[in-house]
Amino acid sequence: MKSTTNKQMKIVIIGAGNVGYHLGRKLYNVGEEVVEVFSRQRKKTVRLAKCLGAQATASLRDIRTDADLYILAVSDDAISAVAKILADRGCAENLIVHTSGVTPLTVFKNTGLRRYGIFYPLQSFSISTEPDFSTIPFCIDARQEDDRKLLMELAAKMSSHIYCFNDEQRALIHLAAVYANNFTNHLFHIAHQLLEKENIPFEILWPLINETVRKIKNAPPSEMQTGPAARGDVATINQHLQLLENKPEYRKIYQLLTEAICR
Amino acid sequence: MKSTTNKQMKIVIIGAGNVGYHLGRKLYNVGEEVVEVFSRQRKKTVRLAKCLGAQATASLRDIRTDADLYILAVSDDAISAVAKILADRGCAENLIVHTSGVTPLTVFKNTGLRRYGIFYPLQSFSISTEPDFSTIPFCIDARQEDDRKLLMELAAKMSSHIYCFNDEQRALIHLAAVYANNFTNHLFHIAHQLLEKENIPFEILWPLINETVRKIKNAPPSEMQTGPAARGDVATINQHLQLLENKPEYRKIYQLLTEAICR
Repeated sequence: MKSTTNKQMKIVIIGAGNVGYHLGRKLYNVGEEVVEVFSRQRKKTVRLAKCLGAQATASLRDIRTDADLYILAVSDDAISAVAKILADRGCAENLIVHTSGVTPLTVFKNTGLRRYGIFYPLQSFSISTEPDFSTIPFCIDARQEDDRKLLMELAAKMSSHIYCFNDEQRALIHLAAVYANNFTNHLFHIAHQLLEKENIPFEILWPLINETVRKIKNAPPSEMQTGPAARGDVATINQHLQLLENKPEYRKIYQLLTEAICR
Repeated sequence: MKSTTNKQMKIVIIGAGNVGYHLGRKLYNVGEEVVEVFSRQRKKTVRLAKCLGAQATASLRDIRTDADLYILAVSDDAISAVAKILADRGCAENLIVHTSGVTPLTVFKNTGLRRYGIFYPLQSFSISTEPDFSTIPFCIDARQEDDRKLLMELAAKMSSHIYCFNDEQRALIHLAAVYANNFTNHLFHIAHQLLEKENIPFEILWPLINETVRKIKNAPPSEMQTGPAARGDVATINQHLQLLENKPEYRKIYQLLTEAICR
């Protein structure tokens, strides 16, 4: 191993989108040395590199080969190609990780790399808001045991929620996250649209939404289920379906979720 | 009008479930005089009456007829019957309100009552947790203008979010609340179940869920949509559907919501 996390690590960030941006800045803030940033978007590369006092590099073929860790914060389908380029470039013995929840460790298998792993922060990042890293669960994996330990130590500098998961577990977490975040957000969108039609401010639902989220921290969601479906209140369900007469998509979702809750 | 809210009101609470319990205690705490509690469940009646220094009454036919306000915190389908009994009992000139989001003002129409209204706190109450009334939106309506004013003044003693809505608007809010609370909670339940299968703690999703809710306060949910459906990431969607092979109900919900987001 070239370094332990007791020493400062030399890190290269590949990808300067939401994950690369926030992860890079956090690593910098906890004292790691981000030496280089590459992304396909020149403007984003320069912005992030500037934040980190790092070099902004315009081509993957020019990436330095002496870093301790290469973090790929690129789209899922680019991981394998980027890894291959790094291996060809001379990084076969350096530690390379991706940050994807859905991509298995085996993505690195035929790239020529020897040391690889996963460094997946389970959060939905936006460029505009500063994430609170201390609460973010890091899901770690690595081909080699000592690399896994290294990645756990690095994550522990940012968060107190570090987990080791295999590909199967991580895929399930990612799937669960789609229900808990993506689909939930779409339901909020429907609620927003329904109210907007009548010029009722969406804010009126915020306390209810806050309470929904607060409650599932005290008991399993199944025990917290309320509403007409949970009560078997057919009259209210019919009234709601009536209100949705001109909204066939919202109606379908209403029916399916109501059936699921009744079951 | 027998009283204005500058004076203390004499209030009767009918129903000692989650809404009656918390609303009664809050009214007591802001200095209103809850004189009597009735519910069909003796134990709950006595518990609430004790909290409020009120009389616990076992039959609707024995309810006192000199109160300023009767708050019906009963199930939706009991409202009309209870209102009729109160009218027959001699409360035709007293102000009677219900606390339901879904029941129209017209439920009181043929009861014999003259003064009636709606006093709907838009929140999901549980007996075990103290609600923060200051944040709860109160949706008010009344047949007579002066009663509406009275109810708004009373609500303003508990919350700073007071709204006047007609039946149509309130029905829409209630419908939107079903999406934002009941359906959302069911999605949390699915996420919980998926993780439980692999002994992964549900807590791992809490930071993500918190962030989902925080984001919709800064921009409309449609602008905050992320995930494989929003990205059109067919490979990930197929992988997820594969993982759900033995969960036809979860799969149906996944497909429908994914289609809705893609649309």
